[in-house]
Amino acid sequence: MPESFDPPQRILLGPGPSNVEARILQAMLKPILGYMDPVYLKCMDEIQSLLRSVFETSNRVTFSISGTGGAGMEACMANLVEEGEEVVACVNGFFGQRAADLAQRWGANVVRVEFEWGQPVDMEKVREAFRKSAARIVIMIHAETSTGMIQPIVELKSLRKIRDAIFIVDTVTSLGAHPVAIDRNEIDASYSCSQKGIGAPPGLSPVCFSERALDKIRKRKSRPRSWYLDVDLIDKYWSSDRIYHHTSPALMNYALREALAIILEEGLDNRWERHRRNSEAFAAGIESMGLEMLVAPGHRLWTLNAVRIPAGIDDARVRGRLLNEYNIEIGGGFGALKGKIWRVGLMGSGSTKNNVLLLLAALQRILKEEGFPVRS
Amino acid sequence: MPESFDPPQRILLGPGPSNVEARILQAMLKPILGYMDPVYLKCMDEIQSLLRSVFETSNRVTFSISGTGGAGMEACMANLVEEGEEVVACVNGFFGQRAADLAQRWGANVVRVEFEWGQPVDMEKVREAFRKSAARIVIMIHAETSTGMIQPIVELKSLRKIRDAIFIVDTVTSLGAHPVAIDRNEIDASYSCSQKGIGAPPGLSPVCFSERALDKIRKRKSRPRSWYLDVDLIDKYWSSDRIYHHTSPALMNYALREALAIILEEGLDNRWERHRRNSEAFAAGIESMGLEMLVAPGHRLWTLNAVRIPAGIDDARVRGRLLNEYNIEIGGGFGALKGKIWRVGLMGSGSTKNNVLLLLAALQRILKEEGFPVRS
Repeated sequence: MPESFDPPQRILLGPGPSNVEARILQAMLKPILGYMDPVYLKCMDEIQSLLRSVFETSNRVTFSISGTGGAGMEACMANLVEEGEEVVACVNGFFGQRAADLAQRWGANVVRVEFEWGQPVDMEKVREAFRKSAARIVIMIHAETSTGMIQPIVELKSLRKIRDAIFIVDTVTSLGAHPVAIDRNEIDASYSCSQKGIGAPPGLSPVCFSERALDKIRKRKSRPRSWYLDVDLIDKYWSSDRIYHHTSPALMNYALREALAIILEEGLDNRWERHRRNSEAFAAGIESMGLEMLVAPGHRLWTLNAVRIPAGIDDARVRGRLLNEYNIEIGGGFGALKGKIWRVGLMGSGSTKNNVLLLLAALQRILKEEGFPVRS
Repeated sequence: MPESFDPPQRILLGPGPSNVEARILQAMLKPILGYMDPVYLKCMDEIQSLLRSVFETSNRVTFSISGTGGAGMEACMANLVEEGEEVVACVNGFFGQRAADLAQRWGANVVRVEFEWGQPVDMEKVREAFRKSAARIVIMIHAETSTGMIQPIVELKSLRKIRDAIFIVDTVTSLGAHPVAIDRNEIDASYSCSQKGIGAPPGLSPVCFSERALDKIRKRKSRPRSWYLDVDLIDKYWSSDRIYHHTSPALMNYALREALAIILEEGLDNRWERHRRNSEAFAAGIESMGLEMLVAPGHRLWTLNAVRIPAGIDDARVRGRLLNEYNIEIGGGFGALKGKIWRVGLMGSGSTKNNVLLLLAALQRILKEEGFPVRS
């Protein structure tokens, strides 16, 4: 028999999960229902409608996939990519690389348009690669969680002047915290997660698909290999057909519903503004301490803030001290940025003035003790 | 803004989810942790160890997949099946059919050994089909949720006298309520779910893989298409490598851990015996009312009890009355058995003497009112 499990109360300022509001946790205690209970089906309808507001879309096919953000990414690739077709993928970080890898796993011949991690995607190069290719799919990461960089997805639609295409956009670290404007930006497929800007626990992946995307799926030569992530089958459960596909994770969806309701109560504009304000305050604090942000101003995510680790400072040691002495979690870097940056998440209910102040103060104390000449 | 969400307190006696014990729900309120937090990693280690006890296995690769039971089924097929290889699938219900379909989606040339739904799999026919084929994979459903039939998986290993093979066994509706004896039965891969015999909320799929299964995966000519369900990548996160794969659904795993601890506190033998006793009491009650069970004695699941709907009785109407007048959910039939059976789940904390008595009493009243000559 294991000992009792008493996790400490952390302040989660890493790449996600963030801390979950009590009201969302309470929603998970509501009586559980069967997956065909009329009351549960109504809850699903509400989730779809709430998600459409947050995605800023009128896409009918908008729902939560019963898996984490990676399952949403895979759902897009598994359904939209056909064997041997060309796909253009914009890569300027770990998740761009992963999306390109997944497209390849699902049979695509991937044209990677690569940039240094932390540098913006140059749309001229994307346009050139797209023009030279026969690609009918372009993949872009709106919010690159590995670097803290945001990419203006508004520029994608200009590619349609060259050739019609499906735009798949990763909004894992932007949905609920940054405007995504799926319809206005003419995005055809997007996937996100429950535990970052949305503020629910991890476990679900909100997705949406345009009519143009569904049309590409309907015209596939063969059905997608993946049954669990088959968008047509999942849609037949979420839509009025109500055909059983899998046993819906009811409590996770209760949490998602509550988190989405909280977002609309706050108001999308207010919520974006709150994330912007706290992120900018954090970056100002970091810079005034004599540290540097990885990403240039104007390209920074409000959710995920990447700080360059100063020379001579031990990444793991500082993060360990934050965790053990202050109960604060922040994230480290991935791949090329391992040991070079800290990733500070200010998302959902975690994006607060007090969290910014507290983390800056704790970091300042630790860095001083570690011998870094903190400006004050 | 949606109205407030106030689901009624149902007594869930369908195919799952079952009602979740307060102690398990409380576990989901414990402070959430990041996916690399040392305290969370310890929780994962404990889940692995607890799952091994419940699966009755020493398989190192034993963990929860971050999706429902269907994701576990797909993980087995996506990793073990290679393009064009022959697979023998035993089919005597909806989930046998689904498993065969999934093996086919993932590239198998499937030899279906089919039996009437609700009839046992005849091992002689399986042996014959296996001998004639070149199959190195055999798929069997231990607990067929669509019919309430259990299959003695102990017989599978005799096939090794003919040819070595990988046995994939579906324990979705047996794990935690029936003995599964993965090691003693020489099962190579098994998948289950969190919300039936385990008694946690839906959303996770416990799986385990033998060394023989891992060896087959390692020798694949190409990596599995699925990244989300790539067992090797998931194992690299659960094992001491601790390489990030996806953001683990922390609260769901807290619930799973608590549910598994409850199982071991009750004791596997006691838990199996409780499920047996309540199922037999229910069947006796049904038969004494003049109704019939679908499955012959000795082949019945203790978790999922299928009752034949008497001629002249309206399936949907009776289930609707149970739900609306008594707040009791039971399940209907699938496919060939639609409108012909009710599926009564007595699983996890829902397998109680009181639930048996209550459902029998409610059903008796409704059937009388619906004009069925209930014996008394």
